[in-house]
Amino acid sequence: MSGAFDLDAYLAGEAPRVHAALERATTWIGERVTPDVAAAVRHGVLSEGKRLRPVLCVAAFRACGGGDGDAAYDLAASLELIHAYSLMHDDLPCMDDADLRRGRPTTHKAHGEDVTLRAGAALIPAAALQAWRAAEGLGCPRSTVRAVVARLMEASGGGGMVGGQWVDLEGEGRALGAEALDGLHRRKTGALLAASLLVGATAAGAQGPTLEALERYGRAIGLAFQIADDILDATRSAEVLGKNPSDAALEKSTYVALYGLEEAARRARSQVDEALAALVGSGVRAPVLEALALFVVERER
Amino acid sequence: MSGAFDLDAYLAGEAPRVHAALERATTWIGERVTPDVAAAVRHGVLSEGKRLRPVLCVAAFRACGGGDGDAAYDLAASLELIHAYSLMHDDLPCMDDADLRRGRPTTHKAHGEDVTLRAGAALIPAAALQAWRAAEGLGCPRSTVRAVVARLMEASGGGGMVGGQWVDLEGEGRALGAEALDGLHRRKTGALLAASLLVGATAAGAQGPTLEALERYGRAIGLAFQIADDILDATRSAEVLGKNPSDAALEKSTYVALYGLEEAARRARSQVDEALAALVGSGVRAPVLEALALFVVERER
Repeated sequence: MSGAFDLDAYLAGEAPRVHAALERATTWIGERVTPDVAAAVRHGVLSEGKRLRPVLCVAAFRACGGGDGDAAYDLAASLELIHAYSLMHDDLPCMDDADLRRGRPTTHKAHGEDVTLRAGAALIPAAALQAWRAAEGLGCPRSTVRAVVARLMEASGGGGMVGGQWVDLEGEGRALGAEALDGLHRRKTGALLAASLLVGATAAGAQGPTLEALERYGRAIGLAFQIADDILDATRSAEVLGKNPSDAALEKSTYVALYGLEEAARRARSQVDEALAALVGSGVRAPVLEALALFVVERER
Repeated sequence: MSGAFDLDAYLAGEAPRVHAALERATTWIGERVTPDVAAAVRHGVLSEGKRLRPVLCVAAFRACGGGDGDAAYDLAASLELIHAYSLMHDDLPCMDDADLRRGRPTTHKAHGEDVTLRAGAALIPAAALQAWRAAEGLGCPRSTVRAVVARLMEASGGGGMVGGQWVDLEGEGRALGAEALDGLHRRKTGALLAASLLVGATAAGAQGPTLEALERYGRAIGLAFQIADDILDATRSAEVLGKNPSDAALEKSTYVALYGLEEAARRARSQVDEALAALVGSGVRAPVLEALALFVVERER
């Protein structure tokens, strides 16, 4: 379906523009915080990453008729600020206690727990103000600016404000499955991926049905993304730890633990189909969004 | 100056209305978060406290011509949500590692570190949305709603976004004094007290010069409040620990350590005078704000 679309080239073209926007954002934040917090913010925000959220935001903005200026990337940067906050806090010792992220020391390993706690929390209002400035820079009407910032804040609730959506997403209402997969990350991923699209589309002036379709698309690829993550984890565990994948996966609740590798893969693919169907139904013509839906389950990390 | 004004009676009258608004706010938040986060939010927000920030917000709202409905208290609740987030995170082991606050277990002692981390962070976007709904409920024009939420977010930067203001506040540009008093709490206190007034005044439609005067008032009482806190700490240390006050105070940088008790008290009083002068200059007639300026240095806890 996306055979003709060169996603690698697209992502390579986006990377420097997203990076430049994140540089602008962290510089702006850095002028407003103490130097220790500024350094932690840079560490957390400017790390390597797929930048999936900004890419989705800009893609939705363009697909809904928005332009191609730097302001779209400034808007998109607000999603990455929220994502960075979430990773910084999740890696803290009282949460996942992670020392490394993508081969680099986590923010608290490099900058201390207290500074990381503050830097992460500082990113939430910073993201709100960033989205605000960017939406105004794009010339959005006030009601649109409001909608953009509200969507961002609704998706930023520290892992809590989006509770209860997994039952709906699963479409089965199975309490056991939903509870077993109750991890924060899962809810946040879907909500923030959907918010990335909605922030971009809203800023471009998209209305009700288009927004609903993009939300369906975003939540579906969010779920697909998480299932794919579970599959990658299980596979990696097998290779790296020499454990049986299902044993490793069973250490915490994952789709692989619940359903097995094959059924998990089937469910991821089914979410991709759902995402593609939502796009078709929306009337939004966006080859990049089609390609990204496939990418989230086919990526290798 | 405030002899005729019965602050105790005023505060006793405000307490149930503030509490009711905080009940409404935590219920609203509780419907949007997981039960563990909801419980931590209630613990952190509904604890005992002076509720100085909501009281200041409502007082400024009324002094600037706002009405007396419950929506003003809903707006004021957003300040207490930010204050609660700040206390919840500050008490965490990687920060102040406090087990007790006002004689009760701190939120992380009662609900766990991970849940408290998430609940605290969830309060930031929740406060933004709370202020938004309340300002709309008050019938504020869109530009005013924007200003209200932006002010709240600017004062919510995890202790970082308001850096560098102490030199100005001290009015001396003394790097040594400013650096020695570089604690987060200090900057946050002044910024959030000022924001409390500005949020209330802005929602009531106050304009430039009035807002500037209230900001001066707020920052002055914020500084007075912190100096008074240092004095209370030093005095309490002497009583409780049997230490020499200045030794106890010198364990960390405080106004008492820097200037001694007498000079610290003089500086607190001088800030109160500055606050009262700002009020007079503003033309805002608000006996309660005069009384509160004295209260922050005369309180006993």
